[in-house]
Amino acid sequence: MRIALDAMGGDYAPDNEVQGAVLAAESVSSQTDLEVIFVGREQDIRASLSKIDSSKLRYSIVHADDIVGMADEASTVVKKKRNSSLFKGIELHADGKADGFVSTGNTGAVMSTATLVLGRVKGVSRPTIGSFFPTVNDRPALLVDAGANIDCKPRHLYEFAIMGSIYYSQILDVEFPKIGLLNVGEERTKGTEVVLQTYELLEQSPLNFIGNVEGRDILFGHADVFVCDGFTGNIILKFAESIIGVLKAKVKQHADKGFLEKLAVGAMAPTLRKILKEFDYQEYGGVPLLGVNGVAIIGHGKSSPKAIQNMIVRAVDVATKNVNGLIASTLASLTIPTDNN
Amino acid sequence: MRIALDAMGGDYAPDNEVQGAVLAAESVSSQTDLEVIFVGREQDIRASLSKIDSSKLRYSIVHADDIVGMADEASTVVKKKRNSSLFKGIELHADGKADGFVSTGNTGAVMSTATLVLGRVKGVSRPTIGSFFPTVNDRPALLVDAGANIDCKPRHLYEFAIMGSIYYSQILDVEFPKIGLLNVGEERTKGTEVVLQTYELLEQSPLNFIGNVEGRDILFGHADVFVCDGFTGNIILKFAESIIGVLKAKVKQHADKGFLEKLAVGAMAPTLRKILKEFDYQEYGGVPLLGVNGVAIIGHGKSSPKAIQNMIVRAVDVATKNVNGLIASTLASLTIPTDNN
Repeated sequence: MRIALDAMGGDYAPDNEVQGAVLAAESVSSQTDLEVIFVGREQDIRASLSKIDSSKLRYSIVHADDIVGMADEASTVVKKKRNSSLFKGIELHADGKADGFVSTGNTGAVMSTATLVLGRVKGVSRPTIGSFFPTVNDRPALLVDAGANIDCKPRHLYEFAIMGSIYYSQILDVEFPKIGLLNVGEERTKGTEVVLQTYELLEQSPLNFIGNVEGRDILFGHADVFVCDGFTGNIILKFAESIIGVLKAKVKQHADKGFLEKLAVGAMAPTLRKILKEFDYQEYGGVPLLGVNGVAIIGHGKSSPKAIQNMIVRAVDVATKNVNGLIASTLASLTIPTDNN
Repeated sequence: MRIALDAMGGDYAPDNEVQGAVLAAESVSSQTDLEVIFVGREQDIRASLSKIDSSKLRYSIVHADDIVGMADEASTVVKKKRNSSLFKGIELHADGKADGFVSTGNTGAVMSTATLVLGRVKGVSRPTIGSFFPTVNDRPALLVDAGANIDCKPRHLYEFAIMGSIYYSQILDVEFPKIGLLNVGEERTKGTEVVLQTYELLEQSPLNFIGNVEGRDILFGHADVFVCDGFTGNIILKFAESIIGVLKAKVKQHADKGFLEKLAVGAMAPTLRKILKEFDYQEYGGVPLLGVNGVAIIGHGKSSPKAIQNMIVRAVDVATKNVNGLIASTLASLTIPTDNN
């Protein structure tokens, strides 16, 4: 099982990438014959490797001079940055030299490049990016689309639901994930024209569709998969990602009020930290790119070694299970009215 | 200054409404000659009044038999529930017998009834509902639209921005509130067609438009007014409202883990409660209905007496300042390209 790892993608590259790979090698079962292919600047990667004990890690290095930055336009990578770690990593996967690809780099660029280089799974109109949200339950919620597709038609949302359901059931071992359509009310008469039509499609689908769900249902885990367009999804995702930072700022402001407040905050900090840790997105193994003809896992630029470890393990898992095959066969078995195309 | 209060709207009506009115009477300055007109079931209102000392409150009661429930369809109140406290309260305002209207009832029904009975401010295509969000700063953020208008055209978003800016500046005494367009990225090329066109309108407007803002900017208060359609706004609002409940559930789960955890949570609870209190939406005096030809303040069904007090004080404030007049004169002074209508 060879995973190509974009070693230059994240904010702490390649140190965190290298450490994450070592952690992954230590955590996968001995049956999984894991090899990590570091893609990036060889000298930098070797420097990071020299800092730690990598004796348990089987790896190779594919040198790539260039780096895709956060400011690079997604669609130009294929034309202008073929020497980047991002492009070369995806190319390795497309050429059959790697079984999956992992990156903490520019999400849009991974999305766009992977779609062009790997192609789409048969039957998929538009690949999508999901995102895991922590919930009060013991399993996370998957939001699709989390920002890849800004303007969506009913057919797109319908496909997101199918891909999300298959991914959730395969990866989290839940037989019939609950699919909810994110909306402004529970009644089936609510929402935009696109959402109203999507409701009808989902209702007739073989999915475990529980109807409309609202913003408040996400963190309470009232559905397993929340379906929405990428505009809404991206705004909620970024709003959610800001909460812990805001809470920390508030706690600090309180501590700054005086000596007693500082003491009180100091006393509560370790417990609060423990509680908030369960809300850490880094635990969830990155987000999947769904609908591309391959295995691509994308992580936050600030991903810790632990987060990168989880992403590599997740990529192995997705590659082992037949997620894309299931998506293709499910979509092939369904007929969607053409006016929703 | 006579404020008509829908005494039957909230989940704890009319007790909380009556207590809120008494608190408001105690808190307004002696120059404000406040009279609260309770609208609702006289017997119930008198029963609530008998439980507390209302000697400082100047009030009258207008009896209304009927109640608009949360399940009632918004548009049917005018036809079917003319004897409701909601309808009669708005009617009092329309007839000049009250200077403002306050309700913690069915938001959609207040919106719809107020628009029909009071009419729109000249130049406004669609009235909107804003919502205040707490921020890390010392002033809240105003999100418009928070759910009133699901499908929006550029012209509507543009008007929301103008109404939000005027309301924010008048009520929070901020001379040039920062107006942000909620989007999936900061670059002006981002977003849906509607959002792209709205960007151009806002750029040419006299507003203090700071460009696109993202989901993470709301709680950090990077703008004062966040402009979006009601679909996105409603989902974010409900997501945000769920956070404190989710955090409480997480804290409780942690406490249930064992004796030491329970002790730790017990020790941190008072401080955490103090910190979260600053995030309580009830402090912000309800949300305004903007663009209707009158003063209507709407609150959460679970509003505390304190929250209702703030709403009454807010209604007095909005009635005193010339918010609607300013909206009308500003819109009259601007020409909007007709293709954005």
